Amino acid sequence: MLQTIEVTKTSQKKTKPNHSELGFGKFFTDHMFTMDYSTDKGWHSPRITPYAPLTLEPSSMVFHYGQAVFEGLKAYRTADNRVQLFRPLKNVKRMNLSNERLSMPEIPEDLAMEALKNLIEIDKEWIPTEEGCSLYIRPFIIATDAFLGVRPSSTYKFMIILSPVGAYYNSGEQLQPVSIYVENEYVRAVRGGVGIAKTAGNYAGSLRAQTEAEKLGYDQVLWLDAIEKKYVEEVGSMNIFFKIGGKVYTPELSGSILDGITRTSVIELLEHWNIPVEQKRISVEEIFEASERGELEEIFGTGTAAVISPVGKLKWGERELTVGNGKVGQLSLDVYNTITGIQTGTVEDELNWTLKID
Amino acid sequence: MLQTIEVTKTSQKKTKPNHSELGFGKFFTDHMFTMDYSTDKGWHSPRITPYAPLTLEPSSMVFHYGQAVFEGLKAYRTADNRVQLFRPLKNVKRMNLSNERLSMPEIPEDLAMEALKNLIEIDKEWIPTEEGCSLYIRPFIIATDAFLGVRPSSTYKFMIILSPVGAYYNSGEQLQPVSIYVENEYVRAVRGGVGIAKTAGNYAGSLRAQTEAEKLGYDQVLWLDAIEKKYVEEVGSMNIFFKIGGKVYTPELSGSILDGITRTSVIELLEHWNIPVEQKRISVEEIFEASERGELEEIFGTGTAAVISPVGKLKWGERELTVGNGKVGQLSLDVYNTITGIQTGTVEDELNWTLKID
Repeated sequence: MLQTIEVTKTSQKKTKPNHSELGFGKFFTDHMFTMDYSTDKGWHSPRITPYAPLTLEPSSMVFHYGQAVFEGLKAYRTADNRVQLFRPLKNVKRMNLSNERLSMPEIPEDLAMEALKNLIEIDKEWIPTEEGCSLYIRPFIIATDAFLGVRPSSTYKFMIILSPVGAYYNSGEQLQPVSIYVENEYVRAVRGGVGIAKTAGNYAGSLRAQTEAEKLGYDQVLWLDAIEKKYVEEVGSMNIFFKIGGKVYTPELSGSILDGITRTSVIELLEHWNIPVEQKRISVEEIFEASERGELEEIFGTGTAAVISPVGKLKWGERELTVGNGKVGQLSLDVYNTITGIQTGTVEDELNWTLKID
Repeated sequence: MLQTIEVTKTSQKKTKPNHSELGFGKFFTDHMFTMDYSTDKGWHSPRITPYAPLTLEPSSMVFHYGQAVFEGLKAYRTADNRVQLFRPLKNVKRMNLSNERLSMPEIPEDLAMEALKNLIEIDKEWIPTEEGCSLYIRPFIIATDAFLGVRPSSTYKFMIILSPVGAYYNSGEQLQPVSIYVENEYVRAVRGGVGIAKTAGNYAGSLRAQTEAEKLGYDQVLWLDAIEKKYVEEVGSMNIFFKIGGKVYTPELSGSILDGITRTSVIELLEHWNIPVEQKRISVEEIFEASERGELEEIFGTGTAAVISPVGKLKWGERELTVGNGKVGQLSLDVYNTITGIQTGTVEDELNWTLKID
C-alpha cells in the first residue's frame, strides 16, 4: 500500500518573479517534498512542507563521500491551462539505476510518482505560461549519516524541489548554434566508473574542462572516450547526434554515457518518422572526414534544459569545422519543434509521452 | 597579513566517549572551524565556534554537482604530553591541488595552518591518550551557491571538524593482514578524470565494488587502471607497496592515483634506510609471477587511517596468492613501528615530519 504523503502548506506564499528574470535554477517555489530513509525503517515519512533550508551535521556523508544522485525534468502548462509532465517515470527509473551504482537505496516508483504529482499540483501556479518557460523539477537523494568511515550511508534524504525557469533560447529567436571544443586532456567518465549514473561527482569533474573551453572562446566541450580519446561520448551535459549523408547517428551507450531521456525520445521520434538512426561508436575523425566530403549535415545535443542544442562549430586540436554554414539544420528544428510542441500540448502526443497532472 | 580567527567557545562541553567505544569518525569534539568564500570577498570570516549543524538551502550546489574536497590527518599526544601533527602542510597543499582540479578556490596555506593549530589547541583535551588512538582531523570544502545551473559555485564553506578515533588494530595485536579482491569490472579513476583529487565523488564511486568484494569474503578491493585493466593503482582508499626480491615497488603517479602523504613518507623512510624503492607501472601479472617464483615477500597498503595495512591474500579472477604465508612481513612492521613511533613521539623524528602545536 502506498504511504500517505503528509502535506503542510505554507502560511506565507512568496512573491513570484517576473518571467524575464527567471533564468535557470535561481528561484524556488513555496513547497518541497522530503522523505527519509534508514536501514531499519526503509523510506518513510513522505511529506510536503514549506520550502526551507536543510539542517545537516558537518559530518554528513554527502559532504565527504559524495553519495548524491539527482534527476531533472519539467512541468509545462498547456494552452488550455492543463499541467503536464514529459515521461516522468523514465526519470524515476533512471534515478534507481543511479542509486544502484552509488550503493544507495532504491526508491519506490509509485511513491516517487505520487510525490511528483502532488508537489506540482500544490505549486502549479508557479508554472510560467510564457513561451519557452517551464517549471524545472529537481528530485535528489543525499547521504546523511553523521559518520566519516568510508562505507554506504545507512540514512538518506530524498527531496524534490521546483524552480520556474525561463526560455533557454532568447524569445523571438529560434535555436542558436553553439561552438564546441573537443576536449583531449580531461575526461568525463570511463567504462566501469559512474558515467552512466546521474551523480553529483560527474558534474564536479566536468567543470574544469568547461571553464577552459570558455576561456578559449567555445561554448561547450565535446567529451571523448577515456581509453582511446577517439570516440565521441557527450557534449557538455547533453547527448549528441550527427546527421551525415541523410542518416542520423548517436554514440551507443558504451557504459560511460548517460542514457538521456531526450536522447531516447529523439531516437523514437526519428524512427516514428522513418528516418534511420544508428547507435554506434563514432570517432571524431569520421565526423571531420564527413565534413570534408560535404556530407556532415547537422550536429545537435539533446538534454532536458535545452531540448535540442545545435552545434555550429567543432574545434579539434588544430582542425576546425563548421556545420551547415553555421546555420541551424532542418532536422534539428523539426525535432525541437515537435518535442517542445508535445511537451506544451501544441503538437499531438502520438507517442504517448506526456502525463497530465490535473 | 593573516586574517584573525574569531573564537567563540562553547558554554557546554560534551561528555567525552570512553576510548573503547571510539571507533572511527563517530564522535566529534566541542568546536569546529569555518570560513566562507565568495567571489567578491575571497575567503573571509575565519572563525572557531561550538560544533553545530549546518544550515544549507536544498539547492546548495554541493548536493547536486558535487564540488566537495577534503583532507584527513591526525593529531597525536606524546608521552611527555605534547600535541603534534604529522606533515600537515602536505595536506593543505594537496587540498589546493584538489581545489584546482574541481574548479574551487585556493585556500591560503598559512591561514589553513593557523586554523588547524588553533582548533586543535582549543580541543586538545579530546586527543585520546590510549595506544593507537588519535584525534582525526577532517578539513573539507563544499560549494554553497543556491543555484542549479552547471558551473563552478561562487560561494564555498571551508570547515575543519575533529573526531577522536580508536586504534585501527585491536589492542594487543600487531598489524593484521587483509584479503584483497582484484576488481576487474568497476574502476576507481582514469587519467584525465578526478582520481588525483581528494574529492567526494571518488569515494561514492568506489562503494559498489567494495560492497561486492565484502560479499565474496574479501576485506578490500585492489583497483586496476581503467584503460588496460592490467596495472595496479590503489588498494581500497590506500596506496600500495610490493616487496619483491629485496626491492620495494609502488605504482607511479600516473594521473589517476592519489598522491598519498603516507605513501610519500614510506618512500622517504625507505630511502633513508637505503632500501631501494622504485615507482613504476606494476601489472597484476608481475605480482603473481613473482609469487610463483617465490620472490613476493610483502604487500602493504598505506594511508592515514591504518598507516600500514599488510595484504595477506590476493584474489584475481580464478587465481589466488598468499603473501608470506599470510603472516605480516618484517618491513611492514618496521615501517609501521617507525612511522607511528614518530607520530606519537616515541621514535626520534630524524626526517623532521612532525609539527608541535603547543
